[in-house]
Amino acid sequence: MSDELLVRPASRHDYDGWLPLWDGYNAFYGRFGATALPLEITAMTWARFFDAYEPVHALVGERGGRLVGLAHYLFHRSTTAIAPVCYLQDLFTDVSARGQGIGGALIREVYQQARRLGAPRVYWQTHQTNHTAQQLYDKVAENSGFVVYRKVF
Amino acid sequence: MSDELLVRPASRHDYDGWLPLWDGYNAFYGRFGATALPLEITAMTWARFFDAYEPVHALVGERGGRLVGLAHYLFHRSTTAIAPVCYLQDLFTDVSARGQGIGGALIREVYQQARRLGAPRVYWQTHQTNHTAQQLYDKVAENSGFVVYRKVF
Amino acid sequence: MSDELLVRPASRHDYDGWLPLWDGYNAFYGRFGATALPLEITAMTWARFFDAYEPVHALVGERGGRLVGLAHYLFHRSTTAIAPVCYLQDLFTDVSARGQGIGGALIREVYQQARRLGAPRVYWQTHQTNHTAQQLYDKVAENSGFVVYRKVF
Amino acid sequence: MSDELLVRPASRHDYDGWLPLWDGYNAFYGRFGATALPLEITAMTWARFFDAYEPVHALVGERGGRLVGLAHYLFHRSTTAIAPVCYLQDLFTDVSARGQGIGGALIREVYQQARRLGAPRVYWQTHQTNHTAQQLYDKVAENSGFVVYRKVF
Repeated sequence: MSDELLVRPASRHDYDGWLPLWDGYNAFYGRFGATALPLEITAMTWARFFDAYEPVHALVGERGGRLVGLAHYLFHRSTTAIAPVCYLQDLFTDVSARGQGIGGALIREVYQQARRLGAPRVYWQTHQTNHTAQQLYDKVAENSGFVVYRKVF
Repeated sequence: MSDELLVRPASRHDYDGWLPLWDGYNAFYGRFGATALPLEITAMTWARFFDAYEPVHALVGERGGRLVGLAHYLFHRSTTAIAPVCYLQDLFTDVSARGQGIGGALIREVYQQARRLGAPRVYWQTHQTNHTAQQLYDKVAENSGFVVYRKVF
Repeated sequence: MSDELLVRPASRHDYDGWLPLWDGYNAFYGRFGATALPLEITAMTWARFFDAYEPVHALVGERGGRLVGLAHYLFHRSTTAIAPVCYLQDLFTDVSARGQGIGGALIREVYQQARRLGAPRVYWQTHQTNHTAQQLYDKVAENSGFVVYRKVF
Repeated sequence: MSDELLVRPASRHDYDGWLPLWDGYNAFYGRFGATALPLEITAMTWARFFDAYEPVHALVGERGGRLVGLAHYLFHRSTTAIAPVCYLQDLFTDVSARGQGIGGALIREVYQQARRLGAPRVYWQTHQTNHTAQQLYDKVAENSGFVVYRKVF
């Protein structure tokens, strides 16, 4: 076991280490307790990471034999490109391991994967009030100036 | 031929009417002349609308036998839902037909399609400086407060 | 309610009528009792029929308010075509309604859907010993002379 | 450069070595001259091997710095499984390199990939008169007894 950070694709054996990170990530967005993400969604999302038909992928960051971060990304069509674009949907570092470059390392590995697979760009969303995250994002990417509208049914 | 607005899925026969709208839409985002969208992307995107394997769709607005608007939407996976989400990527009304409710009618039809197909939500992006568009969007959807970061390779 | 056969896409409300047909179909292939198809597969397959991202579809045949047949088809890529091919995976008519042209009507509707969606061909598999089914198939399609090899893990 | 056979995923750089194999494979099935596979299909199929959204993959066999075989496989949905099945659509060994175990090595690598990615089975089709191929197939897989019907539009 090394103190070096290892960023790698999640494997089926990572479930027990991944779940607390996923729960922590969801809690940050208010999905806990009565508004927790339903268990069947977590089960489905986890299964999709290992389904060869699904363009949905997971990376984990490992240090000292412990999972300390996750990144989930997926490829989807775009009307303005032949190759799919890469959407980095989820990024999370364990609270105990913040400020050590783990988020940046996960993002860079998503870039590597996207480039290797021919995607012309990676994008993600962050809340305009999340200045902490944006300190990192402004270093590794560009604020597009686009905002997201949505209609929830 | 009616003066009523008809919103319907695009068919292969619509290409000649659809192309000027698509060009107009792209020009609005600076994709014209030397920076025009490559022709092979337009050809591929048009083909995908009619490819049963591709979850990419086009609506057109027709009035008096003429196409006056378009909406392109696609479904993609999400890690926080079992059903796919619906991304309204492109929305455009011909300049000569603005202010007549065409954009709103196209959005409402995307909602219909998304609901019918089980998507829990529709989302789209708009530039924070596009106040004209946001006047409409604020009536039919919610500004999520999320901004888009991107890395172009 | 009509005694005419109605062939139409399955809707979420059809579950109770569809399930006995699906069970009957699976029993024909030996999937019942101890070797029954796991319930979670049936749940997933049913859900996929209504998932806008999944190119998996179901038709039902209805007569006198009762479901009497099913056809499940899906689109997948082929290396020798740009448009996807259509695979008719499952076809079943209730035992009480055999010999009334229901299977043929379901196949013809799959052809309609495949053609409408641009697929260059529809194919399916049948066991070489199933002469009853082949009497119908020889009328509406061509025996390709290809046999299926498989490796089950 | 080694005389050992190396079986590996195709890369974009392999195009010049892959194309003659693909042409040879197509010629075997009568697709040459006036009935040759259209060039745009070859271009699209090649592009899909490197499109992260497409579950279509290519392996090549390399010996002494030269490509001597290919295998194309894809994942698609099945109504009787949660995980996708793997369809080995194309398998070809250069005429000058037959009888050296290349076909079998390609098939075994497809098995590896399919297993790694969670597919419950791999299947392919061969013409019932192709006894040469079936000598190999009978060793590594099972003749299912299913025959393929098709309707070409």
